[in-house]
Amino acid sequence: MKLTDTQRAIVEFVKDDGHKSQSEIAEMLGVAKSEIRGDLALLTTLEILGARQEYGYYYQGKKNYILFAELLKSFPIENIMSMPVIVEERTSVYDAIVMMFLENVGSIYITKNGNLVGVVSRKDLLRAAIGTQDLNHTPVNVVMTRMPNIKTVEPETSVFECAKMLVESQIDGVPVIERDINEPEIIRVVGRVTKTNITNLFVRMGNDYFIEGMI
Amino acid sequence: MKLTDTQRAIVEFVKDDGHKSQSEIAEMLGVAKSEIRGDLALLTTLEILGARQEYGYYYQGKKNYILFAELLKSFPIENIMSMPVIVEERTSVYDAIVMMFLENVGSIYITKNGNLVGVVSRKDLLRAAIGTQDLNHTPVNVVMTRMPNIKTVEPETSVFECAKMLVESQIDGVPVIERDINEPEIIRVVGRVTKTNITNLFVRMGNDYFIEGMI
Repeated sequence: MKLTDTQRAIVEFVKDDGHKSQSEIAEMLGVAKSEIRGDLALLTTLEILGARQEYGYYYQGKKNYILFAELLKSFPIENIMSMPVIVEERTSVYDAIVMMFLENVGSIYITKNGNLVGVVSRKDLLRAAIGTQDLNHTPVNVVMTRMPNIKTVEPETSVFECAKMLVESQIDGVPVIERDINEPEIIRVVGRVTKTNITNLFVRMGNDYFIEGMI
Repeated sequence: MKLTDTQRAIVEFVKDDGHKSQSEIAEMLGVAKSEIRGDLALLTTLEILGARQEYGYYYQGKKNYILFAELLKSFPIENIMSMPVIVEERTSVYDAIVMMFLENVGSIYITKNGNLVGVVSRKDLLRAAIGTQDLNHTPVNVVMTRMPNIKTVEPETSVFECAKMLVESQIDGVPVIERDINEPEIIRVVGRVTKTNITNLFVRMGNDYFIEGMI
């Protein structure tokens, strides 16, 4: 896994100029703070950068390589998750199927006023499509799998934990969720992790199994 | 990745008694030759055993660990592939959908007299199911993707090459095929590789990133 140009620029900046905050690094690169969140997470996971509260990021040293398992057990899923596709619960089954084709995804999340209430997979929709229901007048919440029978992960969950959940639960994907601190009963879907994300990472790791030394 | 009891027994047998043929090893274990094919492939890939034609398998020495990428680039897909689900081309779309649910697979291979001619995915069947056709009287070959527009791999293809093909072609799975030496135009399906197989391997590798030393 080679570092990207952005990641190299961050390391050079921090190395030359001492400790830097996320805002300072973003400003130097001319991007939004959110855009470098994944890069900083990778660089600290690899222990190329260290991070301390109220002190910021600092250069920690050269590291020539890291074993796969170390990386995948400490690397948060938010760095490789996909965007979720979401519809409200009164959407018709037919419209959900059309949405699935348009977005080319294997599952769609169902919300009620923005709160996650269910999920439908291609399999659920195929079962509905060969049934006797009128797809245009059946709302998708009739055929969905409902909370709390849905496995979920959080942005901080490691890629290893996510992959293990997919394998052990025999499912193709899980929603990545966040709870509001003030309203913990509200579940917001912020991402989607599938076997596609895991396979992509597997190939990336196979392509370059050494993390190249920084200098 | 720990060696299994069978793999340990093979190593001990070969180590104590010098070079051994696959038949001798199978006989010692009291199993069919075909059952230890995967184990021998793993042990030679890890270079714990060596193999030379007309000489057989021999003990090559202790190896404490192997990096993921080395393993996945030389490990043939036949060791982790699943059984294919196959129907003949005159099967109705409805029966193919039922078969997909019964076998719980994401794609079905279509043959004509045993020769691979096409593949249908959940997506193809969902598209057919919301169409105007009579699913009971439409043969599955009307809605399938046809050869030669199907990516395939062979049993010897490495897991890395397979995973790369899935990612680059944006497909969920590929059939593993063999051609008859005497009739090279005949394509037999012998297996199925999907992102599920890759994710399973990813988790196995994450569980035990060292190949434990043999002694």
